[in-house]
Amino acid sequence: MNPSTARLLISCPDQRGIVAAVANFIAQYDGNILDADQHTDRDHAEFFMRVEIDAEGFLLNAANFAGAWQPLADKFRMRWYVHWAHDTRRMAILVSRMSHCLNDLLWRWKHGELRVELVAVISNHPDLRETVESFGVPYEHLPVTSATKDDQERAVRALLERTGADFVVLARYMQILSPTFVADYRNRLINIHHSFLPAFAGARPYHQAHERGVKIIGATSHYVTDVLDDGPIIAQQTLPVDHRDGVDDLVRKGRDLERLVLAEAVRLHVEDRILVARNKTVVFQ
Amino acid sequence: MNPSTARLLISCPDQRGIVAAVANFIAQYDGNILDADQHTDRDHAEFFMRVEIDAEGFLLNAANFAGAWQPLADKFRMRWYVHWAHDTRRMAILVSRMSHCLNDLLWRWKHGELRVELVAVISNHPDLRETVESFGVPYEHLPVTSATKDDQERAVRALLERTGADFVVLARYMQILSPTFVADYRNRLINIHHSFLPAFAGARPYHQAHERGVKIIGATSHYVTDVLDDGPIIAQQTLPVDHRDGVDDLVRKGRDLERLVLAEAVRLHVEDRILVARNKTVVFQ
Amino acid sequence: MNPSTARLLISCPDQRGIVAAVANFIAQYDGNILDADQHTDRDHAEFFMRVEIDAEGFLLNAANFAGAWQPLADKFRMRWYVHWAHDTRRMAILVSRMSHCLNDLLWRWKHGELRVELVAVISNHPDLRETVESFGVPYEHLPVTSATKDDQERAVRALLERTGADFVVLARYMQILSPTFVADYRNRLINIHHSFLPAFAGARPYHQAHERGVKIIGATSHYVTDVLDDGPIIAQQTLPVDHRDGVDDLVRKGRDLERLVLAEAVRLHVEDRILVARNKTVVFQ
Amino acid sequence: MNPSTARLLISCPDQRGIVAAVANFIAQYDGNILDADQHTDRDHAEFFMRVEIDAEGFLLNAANFAGAWQPLADKFRMRWYVHWAHDTRRMAILVSRMSHCLNDLLWRWKHGELRVELVAVISNHPDLRETVESFGVPYEHLPVTSATKDDQERAVRALLERTGADFVVLARYMQILSPTFVADYRNRLINIHHSFLPAFAGARPYHQAHERGVKIIGATSHYVTDVLDDGPIIAQQTLPVDHRDGVDDLVRKGRDLERLVLAEAVRLHVEDRILVARNKTVVFQ
Repeated sequence: MNPSTARLLISCPDQRGIVAAVANFIAQYDGNILDADQHTDRDHAEFFMRVEIDAEGFLLNAANFAGAWQPLADKFRMRWYVHWAHDTRRMAILVSRMSHCLNDLLWRWKHGELRVELVAVISNHPDLRETVESFGVPYEHLPVTSATKDDQERAVRALLERTGADFVVLARYMQILSPTFVADYRNRLINIHHSFLPAFAGARPYHQAHERGVKIIGATSHYVTDVLDDGPIIAQQTLPVDHRDGVDDLVRKGRDLERLVLAEAVRLHVEDRILVARNKTVVFQ
Repeated sequence: MNPSTARLLISCPDQRGIVAAVANFIAQYDGNILDADQHTDRDHAEFFMRVEIDAEGFLLNAANFAGAWQPLADKFRMRWYVHWAHDTRRMAILVSRMSHCLNDLLWRWKHGELRVELVAVISNHPDLRETVESFGVPYEHLPVTSATKDDQERAVRALLERTGADFVVLARYMQILSPTFVADYRNRLINIHHSFLPAFAGARPYHQAHERGVKIIGATSHYVTDVLDDGPIIAQQTLPVDHRDGVDDLVRKGRDLERLVLAEAVRLHVEDRILVARNKTVVFQ
Repeated sequence: MNPSTARLLISCPDQRGIVAAVANFIAQYDGNILDADQHTDRDHAEFFMRVEIDAEGFLLNAANFAGAWQPLADKFRMRWYVHWAHDTRRMAILVSRMSHCLNDLLWRWKHGELRVELVAVISNHPDLRETVESFGVPYEHLPVTSATKDDQERAVRALLERTGADFVVLARYMQILSPTFVADYRNRLINIHHSFLPAFAGARPYHQAHERGVKIIGATSHYVTDVLDDGPIIAQQTLPVDHRDGVDDLVRKGRDLERLVLAEAVRLHVEDRILVARNKTVVFQ
Repeated sequence: MNPSTARLLISCPDQRGIVAAVANFIAQYDGNILDADQHTDRDHAEFFMRVEIDAEGFLLNAANFAGAWQPLADKFRMRWYVHWAHDTRRMAILVSRMSHCLNDLLWRWKHGELRVELVAVISNHPDLRETVESFGVPYEHLPVTSATKDDQERAVRALLERTGADFVVLARYMQILSPTFVADYRNRLINIHHSFLPAFAGARPYHQAHERGVKIIGATSHYVTDVLDDGPIIAQQTLPVDHRDGVDDLVRKGRDLERLVLAEAVRLHVEDRILVARNKTVVFQ
């Protein structure tokens, strides 16, 4: 399904000769560079690179890449990973009651726009079972109360492990995850927040926005960190509003933003286009 | 220069029959309604209206309008004002060293896009004298130090009074105004802040934005109140940015936003399109 | 479900006293104006108005409104209609094989964002039956060949009549409708075209856009007229693209635009916010 | 003024090893790659690349680069050029009567945002002399009539040659240039057209847009070719409008678009970010 490519992501201290070294390495193993992008953070002298290599004809593969590559990585003190596009990622979705982001992801997945295996949708509410199962996707209802919070999270994690989920999308999941969960899924938990962060973090951002009388609303997708609504921002979009828009209108208009921004963030993640450093993202389009 | 119209702005408790009463009043004096817009804030049961009346043929004028109108205003407990468009507003600009917003306003004014009398540009720095005077506008250099802050503000206010300024535009004026000044020019002091408020209020918003790693930047024009960067928002716009944009790029891109947003806010003010209630604006486009 | 209101839409030659006459008429029957908007086309001296009246307490209703109103309408030579919001509109959707717009409308309808009765989805292909029926909506497969074109259209029209459809949404329906059909459903056939019209009318607009090397793509929703892609435009949106975007990327990005623009147009139609004159729309937001 | 860098732009048939060959070449001469971007047009198997090299420490310079580089260029059948950023480009502006784009470019140039030498502003009208000369820039008034069209263009070209202009910006210059002129300045003549091309090419695009009733307007900057408004598009932007906007409003709103789009196109040209192929641009941001 996916075109067969290797996506190599690198970050390391900036220094001369990195591009040549990487390009030579690839050429040495008969790799054809389909796409390459790089970025230098001059403030911190850090170099970032994404290379997409045609797997066709490339003499390296998932089994032997690391062995060949590691000496070069060591020399340049690289953090790196390679992902082979045919090795489709496994996605789980956590959701509560609101279905707009969920439905959007389901549609994109079903129609091949989102190239993942969708292993499970997990919710603390029963409401969306029928929707999810109509797409042929397993729906797991794991209810939660303040008393059962820890147990429920354990059940969620057990399910993620059992289904082999590589990453998790919080499609308006209204529960705070524990620091351990967040740490274990670092840069693999994608959340959508319904404001242009850092404005209106926390609860009821459309109410806050209405109260403040802003003329634009926004939505923000970010990796989850320990600090609420403070993780590395992946994507944001905004939309004009005016005095005629009540909170309900902001909610309605905002739903469209949330759908688009979350779907974009998931796409970028799935296509290995994101590197994280210093709580910020480098997004190679 | 301006087409001769009367612009009537009203706010009052919401109740039946306001529109009919206003329309009848205008018809009774042979007024032709060129444009009318209204808004009801249902949360607070408050009604807002803007009516633009052709002065041609209208039996009322600046001298006798209030006498005829007041009984109706009393009946509906209206806050109101009327502004006759031929009575061109007098604008002063406060500026420090940065010229992008100033130059934009000067150009719009000179080319008739901004229908005001520009009575003075006042700066705490000497740098922009030549630019301003080349437009035939008086430039007043009123330097300020922490020791002379009060005196300088007194001098600014004296100048505003002497020149008969109706309203003041802070085109990146880097001084905090005293509460008295702000109170006396309530809803007549227009500021531009270089972020999408309420995010990044205060100093160096582009640095804050860069540090946070946002994917959009914004600019906000608002009336000045006692609380820094917290006044009623008139206009906002945003622009996408990405990891390649350093602080310098944000500053450069942001300049274009600031220009547009400030010019838009000034236009709305000059055309009597803004009503303020509860620290928010109703903007009749 | 819908709040009970009467939405009155008017167009007539511009003249003094219209607003007062309309407002008095409503006041005379104890109507409370919830929202009013107007527009004067000065080039053609034509006046447009939309008034939304609280049905609660209003002495007129669907049965007796016309009788009371017609004398006033005659006096001002008005084209007008009134629609009672509780009288929910009946919508049919025509679709071919592509599901993105359809799925979006189905979701909005199911979740109460789109206040219509969805009476049928009609397609010339069988593909989307399961999707549609999973929403509990009847799916009618009416295949078409060049030989059966007239017959199929007759069958479509029979179905629309049988289901009492008030208006029809072409959610990427890839068939040209006959002039008679178009005439009979004047201003009740809403189409989505996947370009910023008038650029790239006709077939394969994303291919045309890619070939021309534009830096923005768009989508346009419009009422259908006899001339292909030339009807009154209801809503348009655009999105930046660049040289990296192949035709497939334009198609993918464009799908999001098409969904949003079509849904917006349908909402505006359902809420009686559109008046058509001279092949253009007045859209009262 | 400009940071000292070499900007190398390449296009050639796509093939393996280009990136490695280029990176090795640069490394061989101790060059440090500050920025690199590439693009492959898969439809035409064509490869494009932009590399920015720190001139500091680079063993090649304007005098000896070509000699060293040409063998590699020949091997890969490259079209290429290198531009040394300290070798500031010389820009001329052609303008008629409208000053909004001109004023914007003048401001950006004066404040160091546009790193060029501005060698002359040439106009077929006398109106803008004072504005231009107040910036210390020579203003050349070369009037034109249908009878003197050829002579005037000769005078324009003589002036461009005398002032050593590298490229020419048509900042709303209302004259058609001859095919010879266009050919001689291929990809060095930047025009702004006040519509989202290809819609509304030719005369009076805002009138056309108003007549058609579009809900968005746009502006397009492009290199000039023999076919009117058909050259490779460099930058486009759009803005929402509605039924209340008369032609005058479109003109006013459009001016802001035109300024931004033209300034963006000039910046991209000056920073050597544009490659042209098949009447389209590759723009390396």
